[in-house]
Amino acid sequence: MSRPPGRKQENHKISRELFVLTYGALVAQLCKDYEKDEDVNRCLDRMGYGIGIRLIDDFLARSAVKKCRSYSETADMIAQVAFKMYLGVTASVSCSSAAGNEFSLILDKNPLVDFVEELPAERASLCYCNLLCGVIRGALEMVHLAAEVTFLQDRLKGDAVTEIGITFSRKAEDRKHKRN
Amino acid sequence: MSRPPGRKQENHKISRELFVLTYGALVAQLCKDYEKDEDVNRCLDRMGYGIGIRLIDDFLARSAVKKCRSYSETADMIAQVAFKMYLGVTASVSCSSAAGNEFSLILDKNPLVDFVEELPAERASLCYCNLLCGVIRGALEMVHLAAEVTFLQDRLKGDAVTEIGITFSRKAEDRKHKRN
Repeated sequence: MSRPPGRKQENHKISRELFVLTYGALVAQLCKDYEKDEDVNRCLDRMGYGIGIRLIDDFLARSAVKKCRSYSETADMIAQVAFKMYLGVTASVSCSSAAGNEFSLILDKNPLVDFVEELPAERASLCYCNLLCGVIRGALEMVHLAAEVTFLQDRLKGDAVTEIGITFSRKAEDRKHKRN
Repeated sequence: MSRPPGRKQENHKISRELFVLTYGALVAQLCKDYEKDEDVNRCLDRMGYGIGIRLIDDFLARSAVKKCRSYSETADMIAQVAFKMYLGVTASVSCSSAAGNEFSLILDKNPLVDFVEELPAERASLCYCNLLCGVIRGALEMVHLAAEVTFLQDRLKGDAVTEIGITFSRKAEDRKHKRN
């Protein structure tokens, strides 16, 4: 997972502070545009989806990873490789269902909320980082993995950690089983 | 200007692709919100200003630069140090007035437009990267330098390079002269 430092990689990096503040401006604009938190959340998810379906090519090209053979491997790939590559942090992963299709990505530190102290009282249902869920959902869809991605815990809402839940839809696998 | 690679600095970096796509989502949202390009431009500039006035502390802390003694030094600082730190590129600088208060920052490559091919015909007056102008203006204001910052050339509009014009208001200097 580590790569030698070089000009090419350096060119792919920008300052996190600029990103975090720009993201904050985006969320603030959506809060102006939409009265209901649910609409802001939906919009962030949709924007993220649009980003994810474009970002996946970049990820596959730069990470040069091979096809994941299980949901578990896919969750690890997102938490360890993709998060590191795009956000500069890694997440820990736990499987939260006996069926093996539900995972939690747990971030001790969420870089997107660096400058955010807490959500205003009137925005208590806002999923501030919901863009991330959309990005993951979009990227997964492009490798033919349908999934629901939502925030389960959020430090901005007083939780101890930030936890993103990924539930892979079992349809694809079911279809395969039926075919065999 | 170069720093040894280390964990601390690495933590300050994120992927440019994610930033560029997120910025694109922001501009697209503003284009939905405002019919007139001028209003989108104004909004981007205002958002950038809000970012700049917060980013300056981060810049001063991380760059550990000393006070600039001239407009020329300030322009170089933005083009060489700040651009490198936040966008991963440097700009070249030329002074464009005999009075010594007008500068052009010229970017051969503008990282913010990586995924943008051209502006749609109905958005011909859009200054897609206007956030940058606001960031520079806001940051300068926080070090007591009033300036106008605008795009003079834009690759997205068919120009050969991207050129940002900075005109420092001479008021501060004039006041100093009067006082002496």
